[in-house]
Amino acid sequence: MNCNTPTDVTFSFTGFAQRGGRTDHHADGWGIAFFEDRGLRHFVDHLPACESPVAELIRRYPIKSRNVISHIRKATQGAVNLQNCHPFVRELWGRYWVFAHNGDLKDFRPRLHGNFHPVGSTDSEHAFCWVMQELAKSHADVPSVAELTLTLRELAPQLAKHGTFNFMLSNGQALWAHASTNLWYIERQHPFALAKLADEDVQMDFSQHTTLDDRVAVIVTAPLTTNEQWTSFAAGELVVFQDGRRAG
Amino acid sequence: MNCNTPTDVTFSFTGFAQRGGRTDHHADGWGIAFFEDRGLRHFVDHLPACESPVAELIRRYPIKSRNVISHIRKATQGAVNLQNCHPFVRELWGRYWVFAHNGDLKDFRPRLHGNFHPVGSTDSEHAFCWVMQELAKSHADVPSVAELTLTLRELAPQLAKHGTFNFMLSNGQALWAHASTNLWYIERQHPFALAKLADEDVQMDFSQHTTLDDRVAVIVTAPLTTNEQWTSFAAGELVVFQDGRRAG
Repeated sequence: MNCNTPTDVTFSFTGFAQRGGRTDHHADGWGIAFFEDRGLRHFVDHLPACESPVAELIRRYPIKSRNVISHIRKATQGAVNLQNCHPFVRELWGRYWVFAHNGDLKDFRPRLHGNFHPVGSTDSEHAFCWVMQELAKSHADVPSVAELTLTLRELAPQLAKHGTFNFMLSNGQALWAHASTNLWYIERQHPFALAKLADEDVQMDFSQHTTLDDRVAVIVTAPLTTNEQWTSFAAGELVVFQDGRRAG
Repeated sequence: MNCNTPTDVTFSFTGFAQRGGRTDHHADGWGIAFFEDRGLRHFVDHLPACESPVAELIRRYPIKSRNVISHIRKATQGAVNLQNCHPFVRELWGRYWVFAHNGDLKDFRPRLHGNFHPVGSTDSEHAFCWVMQELAKSHADVPSVAELTLTLRELAPQLAKHGTFNFMLSNGQALWAHASTNLWYIERQHPFALAKLADEDVQMDFSQHTTLDDRVAVIVTAPLTTNEQWTSFAAGELVVFQDGRRAG
């Protein structure tokens, strides 16, 4: 989720968490990261999201953030344990970077000669470390969002040719999303409407919780609501979201 | 806390969290990090620990870990916000490193020419980045615990001469603690006894929750219990704890 105003994710997360073992089979751990200014709240748990006490906290405690990345894991590579739960976090140029991957990169273990090394054993964290290494080589300091988008558009295809590589990345200033196969987004803004969750019998009237100026973009591998119009990414498309809308 | 068996911190944290605004004035945020194997659960909150919903989760959810570092902040440098909450986390050599500091380093901003830069504005995170930079320069890969202890004993005095520098550091294999002023530790093992918290009217009979082989070391800036014998660190002492006991 990317917004122009700090917004909580309790509604979306309520539906999303059901896919962690209840409405879908992604039961091998989960995680979520919320930027607050430059700071970060990072929660991971190896328990299924539908059972996790930490997920219960996230459903109840309305943490407000402008950039949130969450992931529910179906293990393809790497054991079910904490170090293999997405999203992953690294620091570069005095900024935290958060990454989550949906997909599977086959036989992809590029050499990591830089300052980022995986702690766990997933293809995803290895790919993230490679992205961070290449970003560090390409820029001397935090580049503009537009420059980062250009660099990421060069890097993503090099990974995507090894397998399915839907990913999200944020440094708290913007959120980048890349689609190999399944990725959808929606931009919500005034006039806000009623939304009905696909995974649970819950609905929310956003007009009761928003102001005229609020803008929220939500990006997902499968639409979270049944009564809204979600836009599909094209295969190979890398989109940047800033201030709650598509910015490139 | 450093243990030979994964142990929860709900008892110690119940007392410790009271110091975040109730029995002491450390009300400018707090944090806690739990290693699970190589993985890490990292919780930070800018709210006082005695009021935080996240702290409430930690008091109730018995997360078991062999290395835990927690911190309750009294801001001396840097605003009260999430990026300034300890403990701080970085990755080096495919391992997470967790650091918390009690004290105040005056006019200390050594040049950071390496791969670690602070996200927030505290002297503490700056010092941590410097320690990580120097560790990275001193070793090519994760050194043994004994080698790390030697390196840290060279580094700590260079920081401690700038002010109060009580700190704890862990990479999940061991826990290092350095005292400038106030630091105490206790090693609990069989026969376990009844312990009474200093900050709240709570007591626990550890013999009901432990086995013959369990060993737990707890290191704190002020003793957590009133009826146990805590050992004081000498000024300038750096101690390493491994498998629940002092190892050097």
